[in-house]
Amino acid sequence: MTMTEPLSREEALVRRYLDRPCGREELLRGIGDDAALLRLPEVSAIATDTMVAGVHLSEDAPARAWGHRALAVNLSDLAAMGAEPIWCTLALTLPELDEAWFADFAQGLHELAARHRVALVGGDLCSGPLSTTVTVGGRIGPGAALTRGSAREGDGLFITGAPGQAAQGLAQFSAGQHAGDAVAAYLYPEPRLAAGRDLLGLASSAIDVSDGLTLDLARLLAGSELGADLDEAALLALQPEGLEALAGGDDYELLFSLAPEDKAELMTRAARWDHAVRPIGVVAAAPGLRMAGRAVPARGWDHFGAAV
Amino acid sequence: MTMTEPLSREEALVRRYLDRPCGREELLRGIGDDAALLRLPEVSAIATDTMVAGVHLSEDAPARAWGHRALAVNLSDLAAMGAEPIWCTLALTLPELDEAWFADFAQGLHELAARHRVALVGGDLCSGPLSTTVTVGGRIGPGAALTRGSAREGDGLFITGAPGQAAQGLAQFSAGQHAGDAVAAYLYPEPRLAAGRDLLGLASSAIDVSDGLTLDLARLLAGSELGADLDEAALLALQPEGLEALAGGDDYELLFSLAPEDKAELMTRAARWDHAVRPIGVVAAAPGLRMAGRAVPARGWDHFGAAV
Repeated sequence: MTMTEPLSREEALVRRYLDRPCGREELLRGIGDDAALLRLPEVSAIATDTMVAGVHLSEDAPARAWGHRALAVNLSDLAAMGAEPIWCTLALTLPELDEAWFADFAQGLHELAARHRVALVGGDLCSGPLSTTVTVGGRIGPGAALTRGSAREGDGLFITGAPGQAAQGLAQFSAGQHAGDAVAAYLYPEPRLAAGRDLLGLASSAIDVSDGLTLDLARLLAGSELGADLDEAALLALQPEGLEALAGGDDYELLFSLAPEDKAELMTRAARWDHAVRPIGVVAAAPGLRMAGRAVPARGWDHFGAAV
Repeated sequence: MTMTEPLSREEALVRRYLDRPCGREELLRGIGDDAALLRLPEVSAIATDTMVAGVHLSEDAPARAWGHRALAVNLSDLAAMGAEPIWCTLALTLPELDEAWFADFAQGLHELAARHRVALVGGDLCSGPLSTTVTVGGRIGPGAALTRGSAREGDGLFITGAPGQAAQGLAQFSAGQHAGDAVAAYLYPEPRLAAGRDLLGLASSAIDVSDGLTLDLARLLAGSELGADLDEAALLALQPEGLEALAGGDDYELLFSLAPEDKAELMTRAARWDHAVRPIGVVAAAPGLRMAGRAVPARGWDHFGAAV
């Protein structure tokens, strides 16, 4: 027995609920020192994302959802690069140290982490208004990473899963409904990591849709001087209420472009995914977004309320 | 010209003030995609630290101090491992997007980043109560990293710089005094990176003192079943008001242990540092901290106000 007594309640809760073995051989030294030590593969992908209570997620959302989502939104960024996650850090700021809340939060984070073999290697626990910032790192597998700005004219545009469902879930949750598929999609988004890795060497560009379909599509094309023609029928099939219903954000689906000749291979690989993938339009030479011949604004979630 | 117009004011400010060339060859893809891509050395040290307005730093502190300190407290963690920083990510949550504040914040962060060749590789900008979470990564040079819990009985205990000065600076700043050495030590702590690297292969254990001298000393020894005898005269020379004045936290100095026979080499290396280093006691077989024969409690900053 070399471990001395915990020096504070904070450290005791971290040891009890957050510091779990992860089985990743890359981790040389985890929680409990000034920094974690990892033996990492040559090329790392690194991303960071914050959730603020009342902005990204309600303070009333289950603690388990807070823990799941804090990590999920970050894994979604790695998915959009085609990366395999290895480690994460957690900065958790909360108004009071309630053990039951903390235990549920840790459970939500660790269930998702275990499913994708992500090691929680360190973090910071502070008092203050509820928020989380997770940073994730991963490896890029064979082939170059998926990036933005590299679509080509004529490429097909595709999206995974059921975008728009999270916005419905948010509306239902805010109205007091705390169960159902849409609420689950909102509270417990599933990062599309397997899809992202399957898109390596196949998709010409990719992004994760976190702020709204058209806004993130504009970001996917930013830098390429290209535009897109959206398929109205396909989008109405996704969301009968149309584009507006796809601007709510929180979907964490992958939006990507792909050369027409690669579509058959995409469908082969997508057959093993546990979610749908659908064509929604075509990359076009003319900048801007269009649907049924009309210009479509890039609409979505903007953090400071400006029109975007 | 392949860059299209910024899609939002948020993205425009990030491009203008945060996205600067850093000259680090490790960076393959920086700000502007779902994740950054880096070619990293074999062993990485990774740390993360949050600052919350009103908890760690006043909302009224200069924006430049917010930017400097957000990075500095993290680089201090790498210093305590003997690591050389390479990259950082920034999660910045702020109530409104004021351009002058943002520019000063970015200047404070970039001045420090440039001095230590740290690449800002990505981040997240959100609306909400003012807080920062920076994650840093670096390389461990030749020899094993500095760690906690590895001191040996009879080792000398040393501290860099002028601990206690930051607590004085906080008191002065809170009283309306916005200049002077102590205020600068509080607002613009200098991470002891050169000292940390020089301690590799020399110190037997190390920690950065961020929460108060005795609390962090207890953490340094946690896991070793050892204690320490503190040198009262040395501590009074550091702070005439004694141990109480050293429990304020915010110092970001390095506290480390070292075998007696290595002291001469320490002094040789320390001669090139731009700050002091002083002996403050000895590692002892009996657990607990003592000074002048009396037991000393491990006191310091606890994030949730519990007695520690």
